[in-house]
Amino acid sequence: MDKGSVYTHTVRVRYAECDKMGFVHHSNWALYFEEARTEQMRAKGITYKDMEDDGLIMPVKSMSIDFKRAGRYDDLLSIEIWIEGIPEIRCTFMYKTYNQNGELLNTASMVMFYARKSDLRPIKIPSIISEKYGF
Amino acid sequence: MDKGSVYTHTVRVRYAECDKMGFVHHSNWALYFEEARTEQMRAKGITYKDMEDDGLIMPVKSMSIDFKRAGRYDDLLSIEIWIEGIPEIRCTFMYKTYNQNGELLNTASMVMFYARKSDLRPIKIPSIISEKYGF
Amino acid sequence: MDKGSVYTHTVRVRYAECDKMGFVHHSNWALYFEEARTEQMRAKGITYKDMEDDGLIMPVKSMSIDFKRAGRYDDLLSIEIWIEGIPEIRCTFMYKTYNQNGELLNTASMVMFYARKSDLRPIKIPSIISEKYGF
Amino acid sequence: MDKGSVYTHTVRVRYAECDKMGFVHHSNWALYFEEARTEQMRAKGITYKDMEDDGLIMPVKSMSIDFKRAGRYDDLLSIEIWIEGIPEIRCTFMYKTYNQNGELLNTASMVMFYARKSDLRPIKIPSIISEKYGF
Repeated sequence: MDKGSVYTHTVRVRYAECDKMGFVHHSNWALYFEEARTEQMRAKGITYKDMEDDGLIMPVKSMSIDFKRAGRYDDLLSIEIWIEGIPEIRCTFMYKTYNQNGELLNTASMVMFYARKSDLRPIKIPSIISEKYGF
Repeated sequence: MDKGSVYTHTVRVRYAECDKMGFVHHSNWALYFEEARTEQMRAKGITYKDMEDDGLIMPVKSMSIDFKRAGRYDDLLSIEIWIEGIPEIRCTFMYKTYNQNGELLNTASMVMFYARKSDLRPIKIPSIISEKYGF
Repeated sequence: MDKGSVYTHTVRVRYAECDKMGFVHHSNWALYFEEARTEQMRAKGITYKDMEDDGLIMPVKSMSIDFKRAGRYDDLLSIEIWIEGIPEIRCTFMYKTYNQNGELLNTASMVMFYARKSDLRPIKIPSIISEKYGF
Repeated sequence: MDKGSVYTHTVRVRYAECDKMGFVHHSNWALYFEEARTEQMRAKGITYKDMEDDGLIMPVKSMSIDFKRAGRYDDLLSIEIWIEGIPEIRCTFMYKTYNQNGELLNTASMVMFYARKSDLRPIKIPSIISEKYGF
């Protein structure tokens, strides 16, 4: 697996994001990963907001998470994100999450596709994206 | 206070909605109240979905919650909802939440207004609403 | 795949669970699946709450969701849930979600394990569970 | 109103935190305010996590939010937080939220109390807190 260009996003676990066990509830990882993806784009010089305002959206096709250890309240997480392969219609984002002690908490993948907001039709990766990312 | 026509909505507390203390996190009450309001409308023969599809929205102007006791995981809550006074541009929803033991957990009020989705301009209560609710 | 005993849980999509695209945000499916699992257990005569109060928890080992169509606000979802194979230390829950028009929205799997709350050590499936489920 | 020592916390609005109207859903403000409170404490040299690990919790007694303008996706919010008056058993946190254009989005207050985790009994403000905050 070519990890390509890895971007690392840092996020602090909120109180409300933990459940009775004291763990980050598994539903919330999708929020962290989405935030990491947004910041990866911003670091490339594009914002998801502008892209959406221009009529493009990125629905999720599939997501998969493997949990090694639990995240906990107030953890300062480092989320590594990279794109696997060359995206065309679909784009596969890969994630690895570490806590402040360098322990691997989980790995994940999320397959998304580019689509027109107007009719939800999938389209090839927009040139603005491929240029900024250097595909 | 005229409790007018009280509608009671039942909702089961989800695991993810409770925090490390084992209590319903205070952010989640807004979700239950919104669900209660939706079902109150449905019982009147209107759906919020149809209203929104027709170009009307109901943003929140203010919300206030007083907590007496905590809600807990798997609680089967009874939420009483009623409209206070005669709504014109604003509509005040009142709430009382009880658990399965009949204990009062909280009281709340939420002031909302009717607005056009196109320009977010406040409007008087739509006739479809006032008719169905009998104002 | 032996679908074994399929339990169907119905859930109404909340307004707050939908994103700007008008779709159920992908993070929220984990909430619906968790609710379905809880109700499946209740139908068998056990509650997750009692199990947890007795010192047992069920952390998630992995989760995977494949999206076919988006869920939307006010959709009345039917979630089919069943257990694949014979659970021992791990238990694999399978899910299929349909909307009110019978359209398949997604399929999912979630691998969980039984553990003692006190030390988070995995344990074999508790006899109370295997008896109630008839494994 | 004595604004006392105002702490400003910055938070970026997540995609999942916005609803179909494109606004921050009103339930999510409690998450931002909680994060602001946590960071205000950290700036004082205490963490809520340590406090809780030491057996103290801070349940919410009441919350109230007045909305002036909607928050939107990708907004970079500045949340001002300060404590009103001298806390004893209860502590009143005040909030003002501005967006990146300096527009006031909302004001809020949240009354919390200090309690022992073991029996949920309210207690006077812990000396560690009053010392660090300089009450």
